[in-house]
Amino acid sequence: MELKTKIHAEDGKQELTITREFELPVELLFKAYEDADIVAQWMSTTVVKLENKKYGSWQFDTSDDKGNIVFSASGVYHEFVPNKKITRTFEMGNAPFDVQLEFLEFEALDEDRSKLTMQIVYRSGALRDQMLKLPFKQGLNMAHNRLEALVKKLNS
Amino acid sequence: MELKTKIHAEDGKQELTITREFELPVELLFKAYEDADIVAQWMSTTVVKLENKKYGSWQFDTSDDKGNIVFSASGVYHEFVPNKKITRTFEMGNAPFDVQLEFLEFEALDEDRSKLTMQIVYRSGALRDQMLKLPFKQGLNMAHNRLEALVKKLNS
Repeated sequence: MELKTKIHAEDGKQELTITREFELPVELLFKAYEDADIVAQWMSTTVVKLENKKYGSWQFDTSDDKGNIVFSASGVYHEFVPNKKITRTFEMGNAPFDVQLEFLEFEALDEDRSKLTMQIVYRSGALRDQMLKLPFKQGLNMAHNRLEALVKKLNS
Repeated sequence: MELKTKIHAEDGKQELTITREFELPVELLFKAYEDADIVAQWMSTTVVKLENKKYGSWQFDTSDDKGNIVFSASGVYHEFVPNKKITRTFEMGNAPFDVQLEFLEFEALDEDRSKLTMQIVYRSGALRDQMLKLPFKQGLNMAHNRLEALVKKLNS
């Protein structure tokens, strides 16, 4: 079955583009990136910091059952424009991946549907290709499914 | 005459690399990026903000004789490691250029000489090519010459 979240990665480039259409008004889609409680739920993570403003920073830590941090990511917002766009740096903790630059654009398709376009620019093409080998395609699609279901439920 | 500041831009890529060797110990080279007074002088700009720390932000404004701002740039530090590296976002104000990600690495060659390697990653290859058409090659070389002369003078 075709995944709803699509990843476009051109050969030889050091970037990729992720797109996903949601059955959510753009304001509610944006809220899923802005509201720490909602972020924590659909990303299954702990939101340590989420300063929603230009030059604010953010940090997510994900722990296992024993409280050990298994995944950590952090960065800073270069831009934060509600319901429109977020430009941020993103770096995984304790991982051999260098910081990446992410451009998230939020777009209303109609009153009830919206689209997220996320361009990720890497330090090198090799780094991007390494990232593509991780099983993040299915994981991201599932996370976006959770996001949609959760926000729908919260607003029903 | 060959310029001391070299720019390497591979065809079809969305990045470029700038290198320059300075007749300065690495600590003094780094100071030229850290000390607001020194930055203001070699860049011929007004340092509006220079928060030298992880997730700190920075802003430079350059005015003409009448006080009109002719050039402005700002961004945020993702990393700030004294004498080693700065990772930052960079965006020109009032210009059709999107934000770029910059990796500055400072390296001692010996006690009196050091090297700056600056990798700039753009949102697209087209954007990088546009940037390369600007007369920044000579400008940057001159600015680096000023940096070296100024820091030498301040420490003589």
